[in-house]
Amino acid sequence: MNKVPHRIYLREDQMPTQWYNLRADMKELPDPLIDPATGKPATEEDLYPVFCKELAHQEMDNTTRYIPIPEEIQEFYRMYRPSPLIRAYNLEKKLDTPAKIYYKFEGNNTSGSHKLNSAVAQAYYAKKQDLKGVTTETGAGQWGTALAEACSFFHLPLTVYMVKCSYEQKPFRKSVIQTFDADIIPSPSDTTQVGRKILAENPGTTGSLGCAISEAVEKAVTTEGYKYVLGSVLNQVLLHQSIIGEESLLAMQMIDEYPDIIVGCAGGGSNLGGLIAPFMRDKLTGKTDPRIIAVEPASCPSLTRGRYAYDFCDTGKVTPMARMYTLGCDFIPSANHAGGLRYHGMSPILSKLYHDGYMKAISAEQTKIFETAIQFAKQETILPAPESAHAIYGAVQEALRCRETGEAKTILFGLTGTGYFDMVAYQSYMDHTMNDYIPTDKELEASFAKLPKIPGIQ
Amino acid sequence: MNKVPHRIYLREDQMPTQWYNLRADMKELPDPLIDPATGKPATEEDLYPVFCKELAHQEMDNTTRYIPIPEEIQEFYRMYRPSPLIRAYNLEKKLDTPAKIYYKFEGNNTSGSHKLNSAVAQAYYAKKQDLKGVTTETGAGQWGTALAEACSFFHLPLTVYMVKCSYEQKPFRKSVIQTFDADIIPSPSDTTQVGRKILAENPGTTGSLGCAISEAVEKAVTTEGYKYVLGSVLNQVLLHQSIIGEESLLAMQMIDEYPDIIVGCAGGGSNLGGLIAPFMRDKLTGKTDPRIIAVEPASCPSLTRGRYAYDFCDTGKVTPMARMYTLGCDFIPSANHAGGLRYHGMSPILSKLYHDGYMKAISAEQTKIFETAIQFAKQETILPAPESAHAIYGAVQEALRCRETGEAKTILFGLTGTGYFDMVAYQSYMDHTMNDYIPTDKELEASFAKLPKIPGIQ
Repeated sequence: MNKVPHRIYLREDQMPTQWYNLRADMKELPDPLIDPATGKPATEEDLYPVFCKELAHQEMDNTTRYIPIPEEIQEFYRMYRPSPLIRAYNLEKKLDTPAKIYYKFEGNNTSGSHKLNSAVAQAYYAKKQDLKGVTTETGAGQWGTALAEACSFFHLPLTVYMVKCSYEQKPFRKSVIQTFDADIIPSPSDTTQVGRKILAENPGTTGSLGCAISEAVEKAVTTEGYKYVLGSVLNQVLLHQSIIGEESLLAMQMIDEYPDIIVGCAGGGSNLGGLIAPFMRDKLTGKTDPRIIAVEPASCPSLTRGRYAYDFCDTGKVTPMARMYTLGCDFIPSANHAGGLRYHGMSPILSKLYHDGYMKAISAEQTKIFETAIQFAKQETILPAPESAHAIYGAVQEALRCRETGEAKTILFGLTGTGYFDMVAYQSYMDHTMNDYIPTDKELEASFAKLPKIPGIQ
Repeated sequence: MNKVPHRIYLREDQMPTQWYNLRADMKELPDPLIDPATGKPATEEDLYPVFCKELAHQEMDNTTRYIPIPEEIQEFYRMYRPSPLIRAYNLEKKLDTPAKIYYKFEGNNTSGSHKLNSAVAQAYYAKKQDLKGVTTETGAGQWGTALAEACSFFHLPLTVYMVKCSYEQKPFRKSVIQTFDADIIPSPSDTTQVGRKILAENPGTTGSLGCAISEAVEKAVTTEGYKYVLGSVLNQVLLHQSIIGEESLLAMQMIDEYPDIIVGCAGGGSNLGGLIAPFMRDKLTGKTDPRIIAVEPASCPSLTRGRYAYDFCDTGKVTPMARMYTLGCDFIPSANHAGGLRYHGMSPILSKLYHDGYMKAISAEQTKIFETAIQFAKQETILPAPESAHAIYGAVQEALRCRETGEAKTILFGLTGTGYFDMVAYQSYMDHTMNDYIPTDKELEASFAKLPKIPGIQ
């Protein structure tokens, strides 16, 4: 038998009881949100119309290093956590690499991904504030499923705006979300002003994540007792997702390991930000210096080809503006792009860290991603979500580099979830009908030209 | 925090290293297989044209109590096992029962069920015998997926005959199976004599499990270097699945528990037979006396309404005859019946134990099953396969009985897998288009009248 077990689980009583707030250790903080009406930094109170109070507070809290996880949330976590840290023995063997590859697998719950970690927290705080319900958007459907599960558990009504093309292409995602009693509306819809405007301008549109965000926010602020919740990008989401990294760190300590390289997929940053949190803490405090790599789709390359600038978080321009790596809030990846990771921007925290040189980023074309996904499934018997396969791709590149150099580095990557609801995309890869569309420089320049002008700032 | 953790995992070095052969402890053995050509008991050698040698040996081995699990199979098991034993705290709370409910969850692997436990073993032995490939059938698709994963890992070609209605209704199952490189053929097909005959007699047929078995067996015995493998019913399958029960027993010992009641769903018996194995050992040897309950669909009620008689294992009557509880090998459950558990017969081992009074059986209508499934998903955050929901239903009935009597019994049930590929059925339940068809006595009598006549036996 191998010395290190294949799957490393923390005991329930070893699970983290507090989230880690990365901002408390950053040398320089992300730039503040800007209220588009005033051109001034938004305050916590400015966020109250959109977010419930505790979440608005977490969003703006740049100083509290550790935030206790309420017992009710811990109790929910214990239903599906700790998630396993897995040693990828078979993948290592297949790659013939001296590297040791570990992955933190977040797919063993019905939502199929790490999204549940923040969904539970956001549903809990909303319920605690006696809200009548919440709204959100979902693209690929993982966040919508996770939030539906969490809201059902806390008996909190939920309305999900699902990007229309996903709604139509993924009827089973819709069914799962309905199983947990959520209302689900294809976006753009006639239930909001912004939706009606977009439909009038472009009747045939199949929707976008930015547009669904606009609708969900409008619905929340115009419905008595409702607030809006979001599954990525936000500081609060990275806070909740820090449990992924904290568990990973503890599990690695149990086997006397520490990663030299950490790889995560990057769309809005929810998994990557959570996975790297405690390792970035070590890096920021000078304790260790792991190499941290974000992997994004070549069709939606916000870190590798975007601008670090203030932009709206949604297409309808109803949200505050955040300084982040962005492709422009009107940017929509090619319809051929499969799966998630299709957001135009990137978590302001991760954007700042990337801008300041604390992490690297690469991009990959999707046919390469699916090739990697299928190889991984055959070696490790887990069929990954397309999003997760970006992280696998990055880890494989690093492991192959180790094969060349002969270095036995320790690689940790985040396997965010499973691909059971992504079989249309897998089939199109196997049928060779999938292609790789990459935006041209000209397209991106046109999008950057529309970035908001803010007097005195940009 | 609760004293007993929510999820109990064995350490990797605590995992069972041998399978348990229930037959070695049975007071009376199941009746032998009968060769339809001679009317005499089949020998191990008689099975060689169909099964590879080691599996034929395991099929006929009534005496070896423990069979070591080959290291290569253990190594594969370590990729996805041990599976968790989970305390259903939230379900208990919802039911307001003094009972303690545990379930052994086998769905945390890409095949989505316990089927992988036997698939790995069968693929391994086939590869070890240098076979060129294997054939099998699949109904709901879980077995086909599991075997495709296992065969891909051992580089063994696989042809799957998939019941035509499933093939058409579950395109995503097909895609997953193809991801692992298996050939997949809708059954009945023109690739076999028996398939052509069935198609000629009934051109519009959507197929049945019994018919797909006939095709897979014919294909195996007529293709050089090929053998046939099966995911349920057989003694060898129950042997491999004993790992479920052995792990459950060890996990319960870790928390000083032992089940008063054990509940499993029953189609061909693969999960139930594996789950109960060590507890039945205790019962057969007089050590303990747990109550053991099989739960089957009212639309395919082999234990509760079938005959204990010799019957063919397939529709085409190409297999040996087994004495088992059967609805007749031509019986096909209503097309409205969702999910698996649609086999006309039942494992000969379980049939004998049931016949001799060692276990009970109940049946349930499918709308009740889906009602239970959705309640469970909301409480425990796992969306169960329809098959698994039968076991939940049985456990809930027992827990409710405890509420009435005030007894704090310990209930263990088998949660065989997840329902991610069963959303069409979930949707039809939510849309109220699902109904409960139960075969009439007259229909069953007509089916029993066609049971084979064997001179001197029946």
